[in-house]
Amino acid sequence: MISKNQIKNITRLQQKKYRQQEGLFIAEGVKVINEFLNSTFKLVDLFTTKTFNVENETLITEAELKKISALKTPNTALAVFKIPKLSLIESKGLIVALDALRDPGNLGTIIRLCDWFGVKQLLCSKETVDCFNPKVVQATMGSLTRVNVFYIDLNHYLEETKQTVFGAFMDGENVYASNLPTEGILVLGNEANGISQSIEKHVNQRISIPRFGDLQATESLNVATAGAILLSEFRRSN
Amino acid sequence: MISKNQIKNITRLQQKKYRQQEGLFIAEGVKVINEFLNSTFKLVDLFTTKTFNVENETLITEAELKKISALKTPNTALAVFKIPKLSLIESKGLIVALDALRDPGNLGTIIRLCDWFGVKQLLCSKETVDCFNPKVVQATMGSLTRVNVFYIDLNHYLEETKQTVFGAFMDGENVYASNLPTEGILVLGNEANGISQSIEKHVNQRISIPRFGDLQATESLNVATAGAILLSEFRRSN
Repeated sequence: MISKNQIKNITRLQQKKYRQQEGLFIAEGVKVINEFLNSTFKLVDLFTTKTFNVENETLITEAELKKISALKTPNTALAVFKIPKLSLIESKGLIVALDALRDPGNLGTIIRLCDWFGVKQLLCSKETVDCFNPKVVQATMGSLTRVNVFYIDLNHYLEETKQTVFGAFMDGENVYASNLPTEGILVLGNEANGISQSIEKHVNQRISIPRFGDLQATESLNVATAGAILLSEFRRSN
Repeated sequence: MISKNQIKNITRLQQKKYRQQEGLFIAEGVKVINEFLNSTFKLVDLFTTKTFNVENETLITEAELKKISALKTPNTALAVFKIPKLSLIESKGLIVALDALRDPGNLGTIIRLCDWFGVKQLLCSKETVDCFNPKVVQATMGSLTRVNVFYIDLNHYLEETKQTVFGAFMDGENVYASNLPTEGILVLGNEANGISQSIEKHVNQRISIPRFGDLQATESLNVATAGAILLSEFRRSN
């Protein structure tokens, strides 16, 4: 059984304002929930149509699940977890930074890419979509448990950092011919506008993915696919 | 002015059945429509709130545009184009083949990637989402005008082809260490199930993208990001 009040409290976690106020977020589906349960994330409530054999579990009906789910097709269970307190950013290793990324699907894909390529720290400008947005949580497939996402004043951070800052630009150096280090910060820009002028000032090395099509070919790659190719290049060459 | 009958005929092109019956598809927004207008695609009707100075143009109001648009936020214009008659597949160069890809966004991203990397031919199994689906058309950003998409019996085609067939598998050879040719067919699989068993039989070279995270890391990459990395590898090494 789930009360009207609980339904209200859960569904409003679909909004960033309430997630920040409560320090909570929702995850859905057996696979995704299990990834969070097997991590350091703290479970607050689990509403499920089939038992997980955990504490804080409430068995509910499909109809009740539908009332609290953010998915078009709810999948077995919905869990409420605490948003973890992050430690400090360590300026070492390969770091990815996002400048005002807007699309939840793109952020989810980039978090999965970071996980695949062993990038432990993802820095997001404050304008970047929230990583605890339900769409992002579902798109990451649990990678959020292994990648630390920091929302910061990116401009200020890049101004102070001693690491080399890389950015993708059309006029950058051919990434296949570039000598890429094992450490550094790779900046990816906004879907429509790319890297903003204020962030561009802090870029030390401009890189670009060569185009192989004819002159009329597409003018840009999607930010997640460009990120995939660039991370692959950083890891391949080291 | 736009009639009720016209509205019905246009909106039903959002369904594959009617696109195939009529041999027509819709494209929206100034930028995307201009890419098709500047290609060999044949315009049938253009409904727009601002003139394009072309024949077959009907000026309409924002309210009318809303009635025919497939977008949440309609953008200036909607055009109806003829689905082109394709020539025969040429078994040369680098070709991408999709085995039952279901997500329109992924197909759109892969068509853009083909365009970027100079892949002129994209083979789709009959179960793959239709490339003239409005979501795919919008996601391709005009790349559909430069990449020929063929819907075929993929199993039969791969059985007959003399080109080398490459497929991505977890247990494949490290793609960074592989000797990749300039010609061949790269098969990408379904989002949930990967490459099907019947298609797998025709794969001559199994390749894989190494994972750099720890052992617990994400079990797979999104098909579009995996495709991005693999196409980048094919082009980089030649």
